[in-house]
Amino acid sequence: MANPFYKRDVLSLKDFKREDLELLFSTTDKLTEMKYRERVSLGEGRILGIMFFEPSTRTRLSFESAMASIGGTSVGFSETKTTSIEKGESFADTVRIVEANSDVVVLRHPMEGSARFASEISLKPIVSGGTGTEEHPTQAMLDLYTIYKEKGRIDGLRICIVGDLKYGRTVYSLIYALSKYDVKVDLVSPPILKIRREATYNLEKIAGKDKSIEITERESLKSVLHEVDVVYVTRIQRERFPDEQEYEKVRGSYYLDAELAGMMKSDAIVMHPLPRLDEIRPDLDATPHARYFKQVQYGRNVRAALLSLILNS
Amino acid sequence: MANPFYKRDVLSLKDFKREDLELLFSTTDKLTEMKYRERVSLGEGRILGIMFFEPSTRTRLSFESAMASIGGTSVGFSETKTTSIEKGESFADTVRIVEANSDVVVLRHPMEGSARFASEISLKPIVSGGTGTEEHPTQAMLDLYTIYKEKGRIDGLRICIVGDLKYGRTVYSLIYALSKYDVKVDLVSPPILKIRREATYNLEKIAGKDKSIEITERESLKSVLHEVDVVYVTRIQRERFPDEQEYEKVRGSYYLDAELAGMMKSDAIVMHPLPRLDEIRPDLDATPHARYFKQVQYGRNVRAALLSLILNS
Amino acid sequence: MANPFYKRDVLSLKDFKREDLELLFSTTDKLTEMKYRERVSLGEGRILGIMFFEPSTRTRLSFESAMASIGGTSVGFSETKTTSIEKGESFADTVRIVEANSDVVVLRHPMEGSARFASEISLKPIVSGGTGTEEHPTQAMLDLYTIYKEKGRIDGLRICIVGDLKYGRTVYSLIYALSKYDVKVDLVSPPILKIRREATYNLEKIAGKDKSIEITERESLKSVLHEVDVVYVTRIQRERFPDEQEYEKVRGSYYLDAELAGMMKSDAIVMHPLPRLDEIRPDLDATPHARYFKQVQYGRNVRAALLSLILNS
Repeated sequence: MANPFYKRDVLSLKDFKREDLELLFSTTDKLTEMKYRERVSLGEGRILGIMFFEPSTRTRLSFESAMASIGGTSVGFSETKTTSIEKGESFADTVRIVEANSDVVVLRHPMEGSARFASEISLKPIVSGGTGTEEHPTQAMLDLYTIYKEKGRIDGLRICIVGDLKYGRTVYSLIYALSKYDVKVDLVSPPILKIRREATYNLEKIAGKDKSIEITERESLKSVLHEVDVVYVTRIQRERFPDEQEYEKVRGSYYLDAELAGMMKSDAIVMHPLPRLDEIRPDLDATPHARYFKQVQYGRNVRAALLSLILNS
Repeated sequence: MANPFYKRDVLSLKDFKREDLELLFSTTDKLTEMKYRERVSLGEGRILGIMFFEPSTRTRLSFESAMASIGGTSVGFSETKTTSIEKGESFADTVRIVEANSDVVVLRHPMEGSARFASEISLKPIVSGGTGTEEHPTQAMLDLYTIYKEKGRIDGLRICIVGDLKYGRTVYSLIYALSKYDVKVDLVSPPILKIRREATYNLEKIAGKDKSIEITERESLKSVLHEVDVVYVTRIQRERFPDEQEYEKVRGSYYLDAELAGMMKSDAIVMHPLPRLDEIRPDLDATPHARYFKQVQYGRNVRAALLSLILNS
Repeated sequence: MANPFYKRDVLSLKDFKREDLELLFSTTDKLTEMKYRERVSLGEGRILGIMFFEPSTRTRLSFESAMASIGGTSVGFSETKTTSIEKGESFADTVRIVEANSDVVVLRHPMEGSARFASEISLKPIVSGGTGTEEHPTQAMLDLYTIYKEKGRIDGLRICIVGDLKYGRTVYSLIYALSKYDVKVDLVSPPILKIRREATYNLEKIAGKDKSIEITERESLKSVLHEVDVVYVTRIQRERFPDEQEYEKVRGSYYLDAELAGMMKSDAIVMHPLPRLDEIRPDLDATPHARYFKQVQYGRNVRAALLSLILNS
C-alpha cells in the first residue's frame, strides 16, 4: 500500500480515509516495538518546525518528544513575544521563514483557517496542532488509537462525548474520525454548548462509505452512563457563560468521579484531552476506568508514527 | 587546503579572505547534496551554545536548524528574562557558563564590541549572530552565497543596496564581503541614513587584494534600478526619524513593488535580510525577481557548512 | 558491580552511598574520554523532560548539554508562563504529562518536598534540579567530583564552606555528600545565616559508615583561610536581611579577592556554585586558586554520566 501521509498536510480528519488511519495505527504499533537505534534512523537530520501562536504544554511536548524519539529535532517558537511577529512581520512571511528551516511544520493558532492558509503558502507539509475552534486532527488520531488499543476495536462501540461541544475543537476532529466507523455516539452537553451544525452536516460525505455512525444529542450524562463503552470528557470553560450561576449549575452536572464511575460498565473507559480541572475528580484516577494519562503516552507514539510517515516514502 | 575556519571565531568579514569564502561556498554545495546519515555525522554529540540577548526568530531558527541538520544540538537562551542575567551576573561570567557547556557559541547582543569581548574570554569559538550596529557576518556570508548561486558569479556584477545604511549592521558585513570581489556597488539611502564612514575607510586593506570594488552613494533608487543585477533592500525603521512626515516621505521613495520591478533587468534579483514590512510589497513575491525566501533556505545550509568547518579540522 | 543509578530517582544525597558516588565519578572519567560517536550511543532516542518552575540558566544548560552530549534530547519548559499551569492544571497532572513524554525528568521547584512528591507520582526517574531550600543533589555530585579531580582525593581534606548556609540548598547536599568521607569541614557564616539544624542531625546515619566527618561552625573567614584545602563560597542575598546596614556589614566580611587568596595555602582551591555577584572579586579569576569555571565543565560531564547510568542498566 502506498503511504498516503508522505509529504502530506494534516489539516482535517475529513481528508483521511479509514484505511489511512489504520495504516497510522499499525505504524504506531511497529514504532512502539522498535529498538532506539532503529527508531532514530527514521528522522535523523530532519527538522520539525514548531509554530505555536497559542501556548500549549501538552501538544508541544508531545510533538517534540515524538520528533526526538525518531531522531529528529524541533526548532521554532511557542510564544510570540520573542519573535519577529512583534516587529510587524506578516503571518505569511513567518510561515515562509519557518518552513524554509524545516522538513515539516506543526502550527497552532487561534484563528480559523490559519492552518489551511499556511499550507497554501508552504512547500513543506503543515500539520495542524489545533487552530481556532475547528479541528485538532492529531488529537483525534491519538484518541482513536487509544480506543483501539484499550477496547481492542472501534466498530460496535458506544461512545459518549461530554462537555463543551460547541467550542472544543478536539470534539470536531473526533466526530469526523469516528464517522468512518460503525459506532453509536452520544453527545452530552448543556444547551448553550451544543455541537455546531457543521459537525454533523454532510457526515455521509466525510464518512467516505455507507455512513453507519449514529449520533444522539442529550443533556443528561447520568442517563447514558451505564450503557457506554467510552466516556470522553472535555473541559467546560467559565468564560463561555454569561453568568456565574449558570456556570455553577453546569459544572455540577457534567463531571465524573469514582462514585459516578461505579454506574458505568465495568470495562468502560474514561478519556480526556487534558488539561482537566474538576470535570474529572482525582478519585477517579485510581479506578480501572481512567485512561487519560495512557492517552498521553499513546499520543507521543502516534505523532512519532505520523511524522515518520510524512517524512519517509 | 587547510581549513581556515577550524576552531576560529567568526566576528567580522574583515577577518576572512576571498578564498575562505569560496571554501565555505563549496562546502555548502557539498553539504546540500549529502544524505541525511552522512550529514549528521559532521556534528553528532556537538553543542551549539545560543546566547541571544536580543530577540530574533530568523537568525536563531537558522542556526538551530543548521546545527540540527549536521546532527548537533543547540542549548542556551533567546531572551534574558528566564536567565541569571536578572540575578545580576556579569556578561563575562554568562559567557563562561555558556562556553563551558558548548563546543561553539553564537552570540547576539545589542552592544558594539560584545562579540569580540566574548571571544577574548571564551576558549570555544564565538560566532557573531549580529552585535550592535557593527556587523552580522553570517548574514553577509549567506547573502554572498545567494548571489553566487542565483547569478552564477559575483565578479562583474552591479549591486544596489538600499534603505537604512547607517544602522543596518547587515550592510556593513555585506560591503566588507563584496570588497573582496570585482563589483560595482550603489548605496542608495536618504541623507540621514547614509552609510557610516567606517564602512569605506581602509577598504583596500579589508579587500586583501588590489581593491577593485567601486562604490557610489546615491539618493534615488529609480535612477539606478534599470542598470543593476542585484537589489538588496533593507528595512527603514520609523524610530530613526525625528518626525513622522520625514519618515513618510522616505517610506514613499525606498520601496519596491511589481511595477517598479518592471524597470529592472529581466534577470535582476531582489534580496532582503528579512523581516520586511512594506519596503517590498507582496505583489513582488510572485515575480521572477524575488529571492528573499530562497535566501533563507540558502542561509541554513551556509550556516551548517560554517559550523561543520568550525567543528571539524 | 550492579548499577545503583539505573531507573532510580535522584532526590537527596542521603540516598546514595560512597561507592555509588565513586561509580559516578569513574563513569564520568570514562565518558570524558569517549569519542563523540561512542558517547551519543548512550542516550540516542532518549528524552529528558525539563520541568523548571524556577528560572535557572546554569542548571538547565548543564542538563541539556549533558543530555545532548550522550545523543539524547531535552523537552519541557523552563518558565510557567507559556504552560498549562496557567490554565489551572495541578502539579500532579503536569508531572504525569511530562513523564509520559520522557525517559527521565529533571525538576526544579521552589517548594520543599516537590521532587519527592513528583517521584511518588511518576513511573520515570525524577532527578531533582534543586527544590526549595532542601537540596540540590547533582550540584553536590559535581562539587565533589571537582574536589576529587582538582585535589586528587577527598579523604583527609579540610574544606571551608562560607556564605549563606541557612537558605543555600547547595550546601545541604554538599554536607551530606562530604559526610561519607573523612574530612574536616568549617562552616563560616554570619549568625543569622547559620546552617539549619537538620543538616547535622543524624549525620551518622547519612554517612552510612563510622562517621569521620568533623564539622566546626565559625563566624570569621580569615581565621581559617590559611589552613583549608578548599574554600566553597556561596552567595549571600540581600533579601535575607531585615536592614540594609546589616547586609553591608556581612558583605564586607564574607568575600574573597586576590589579596585574601594570598593568605591561603598555595594549592588551595576556590569553588562557587555560581552565579556569583561580588563575593568572589574578578581579580581572583586569574589566580591559580580559581576553580569555579572548571566546576561548570565538570558539571556537564558528571550530569551526562548520571543520566547515562539512569538510562542504561
